[in-house]
Amino acid sequence: MESSARLKNIGLRGVPVADTKISYIDGQKGILLYRGFRIEELVAKSSFIETAYLLLNGSLPKAKDLQAFSNEMLAGRQLPGFIHDSLKGWPKHADSMDVLQASIPMLAMADPELGNETRDANVHKAIRLLARIPAVIAAWHRIRQDHEPLPPKEDLPHAANFLWQLTGQQPDSEMAHDLDVSLILQAEHTFNASTFACREVVSTRAHMYAGVAAGVGALSGSLHGGANARVMELLLHLEEKGKSEKDMAAWVRQQIDSGERIMGMGHPVYKTFDPRAGILKKIAGRLAAEAANENRYKMLARMEEEAVKEFERRGKRGIKANVDFYSGLVYSLMSIPLDLMTPLFVMALSTGWCAHIIEEKFAEAQGKPALYRPQAEYVGDYCGPVGCVYQPIDKR
Amino acid sequence: MESSARLKNIGLRGVPVADTKISYIDGQKGILLYRGFRIEELVAKSSFIETAYLLLNGSLPKAKDLQAFSNEMLAGRQLPGFIHDSLKGWPKHADSMDVLQASIPMLAMADPELGNETRDANVHKAIRLLARIPAVIAAWHRIRQDHEPLPPKEDLPHAANFLWQLTGQQPDSEMAHDLDVSLILQAEHTFNASTFACREVVSTRAHMYAGVAAGVGALSGSLHGGANARVMELLLHLEEKGKSEKDMAAWVRQQIDSGERIMGMGHPVYKTFDPRAGILKKIAGRLAAEAANENRYKMLARMEEEAVKEFERRGKRGIKANVDFYSGLVYSLMSIPLDLMTPLFVMALSTGWCAHIIEEKFAEAQGKPALYRPQAEYVGDYCGPVGCVYQPIDKR
Repeated sequence: MESSARLKNIGLRGVPVADTKISYIDGQKGILLYRGFRIEELVAKSSFIETAYLLLNGSLPKAKDLQAFSNEMLAGRQLPGFIHDSLKGWPKHADSMDVLQASIPMLAMADPELGNETRDANVHKAIRLLARIPAVIAAWHRIRQDHEPLPPKEDLPHAANFLWQLTGQQPDSEMAHDLDVSLILQAEHTFNASTFACREVVSTRAHMYAGVAAGVGALSGSLHGGANARVMELLLHLEEKGKSEKDMAAWVRQQIDSGERIMGMGHPVYKTFDPRAGILKKIAGRLAAEAANENRYKMLARMEEEAVKEFERRGKRGIKANVDFYSGLVYSLMSIPLDLMTPLFVMALSTGWCAHIIEEKFAEAQGKPALYRPQAEYVGDYCGPVGCVYQPIDKR
Repeated sequence: MESSARLKNIGLRGVPVADTKISYIDGQKGILLYRGFRIEELVAKSSFIETAYLLLNGSLPKAKDLQAFSNEMLAGRQLPGFIHDSLKGWPKHADSMDVLQASIPMLAMADPELGNETRDANVHKAIRLLARIPAVIAAWHRIRQDHEPLPPKEDLPHAANFLWQLTGQQPDSEMAHDLDVSLILQAEHTFNASTFACREVVSTRAHMYAGVAAGVGALSGSLHGGANARVMELLLHLEEKGKSEKDMAAWVRQQIDSGERIMGMGHPVYKTFDPRAGILKKIAGRLAAEAANENRYKMLARMEEEAVKEFERRGKRGIKANVDFYSGLVYSLMSIPLDLMTPLFVMALSTGWCAHIIEEKFAEAQGKPALYRPQAEYVGDYCGPVGCVYQPIDKR
């Protein structure tokens, strides 16, 4: 039943399907580049808005370009009224990723440039999407708690405004900056399953929103998005069972002995370390100290330390914390509920999705034959040239 | 800039990515099999509902299984009230494919078995989707004309009920049967771009609705869905310019001389003929005769005849009418507006999408490593191990 063809290309792993100029990962050296820039450099010196400009346009903006880009983001924040009205009618228990996926084509309905497929128009669409996805997440969270959505604040930058619209509390500038950094870290990660879904859909010449909705669908799968929430769930579960920092050595050993994974450790691409994890660890530590709530942070840091030691003792080097290990804790210290962690991932990664959608659309213009249409091996019934015999229903 | 890797796998053409038992195409012989049965056999002897059972479950139903399946479809027809409420608030000019894509995750919110990932639960979800997609299309069409959506009629079978809900007119049984046949013909077509998008999304373990929404996105692209509407547009355009049957020989010659395609002719897979086209031609002819409106049919039939002759004269054999050539005319003779022709395609092809989603989910259970994550060739900036230098904004 297994065909050799399928065994060769399982999950398309290692099969190159396109060229990209957007990002580069060196898994051995723990390097992640966006448009040639190291992630550490962008985190230290740039902002999410500027990084979005960089990913979408290919180079860093001059001051006036960044200003224009920021103004467009600001103008895009206001959600069309019909979206609020629809959200108010949806079941309060709805899965937040279903809510987000349904909202993306609704944003398309409100885009004045929907039918314009120039590169510029696509960048404008991307800006509107990046401005409005956080607004949808925040509005949904308010509405499901029977609160009115909060209007955006013009004087607040992107991340700060999101936290305000979500929680009704204006974050201090340090927390807002921490969220901005998290968004930079998760803005792009080359051809993962959701990014490929976006590119695949627009390869048919579908518009950007149709592609982004597919990306949301793919990220909703438990093998893709959601790992950070699961780390956080584990942490809460351990806490509930009365565990703390000092129990981690034994817990980790037992976990590995019984063949279980340590959620958030190890990565299919980064074989030495994930450059994003250390940055998030620092943020988690500082937020925990500020909140005078360090138990979870200490438990997690100890879990990491013990797991690395334990894996090395067993000859498995390079199983380190990945981007998901600390990001759940970071988000929870910002009062972001567990089920919004994957939508937060969308808020960041939609930047990369839009950059890839634009790359796919304009690679096409360079003569690349269009849509992705792979082959399948037929392994089903074949009853000869006339096909199987259709038996009347009373003879089956 | 072009990498050899990319040139090898453009659009994944010819790259086998999975096994399938759902359908088989022999492009040389003009054969299309669903689960081993020839499409001609199913059109002659089966119904859309039974074909959906066959595609989803792998074999033809016994009488009691078909009854249970039909009953479930019937029960699924009623749309949740919040969906009507949302549709009523959306911009009336919204693209019908955006409306459909937004509605799929809303249907997820109303599915009582959403979190249940057994095979049975997935079949139930598929049935609800197949029952509700037509209801969404019909409701949207009524609402955008400021009419109330019509309730389903229990005594009408699937296709007839759709035409009733769409137009407020109960079709005669022959027209209802013609639509049923069209739905069978477009229910499945192995790994095309939308089907692959569905499989790709659920390979992350996302639920069926998340995958189907991606399929809708892919089908909305002009390189994939919509060709039948474009044939119909061409026909209307020619009619407006005063052309008729007798002008087709000259028009076809001129079209081919100037290097233009004849829309709806030729197929990337069928190299001799598309077995679906002849069936639709017969239906178009009969519907046109019944409506005493044969001019368009005659013009189209003559266009096909002249094009085949003209291509053969130029040494291009096997460029025949494909499934899209007559289906636009068939739909328009059923009073289905141009912009609903791709949604109609969704109404049919979602059967195949759901069958493929189930196949993908349960192939996974057989040990296939999960999500599709191909490789990209990085061809962008790389400024050495420290990356490109981040210049302060005033130095750029």
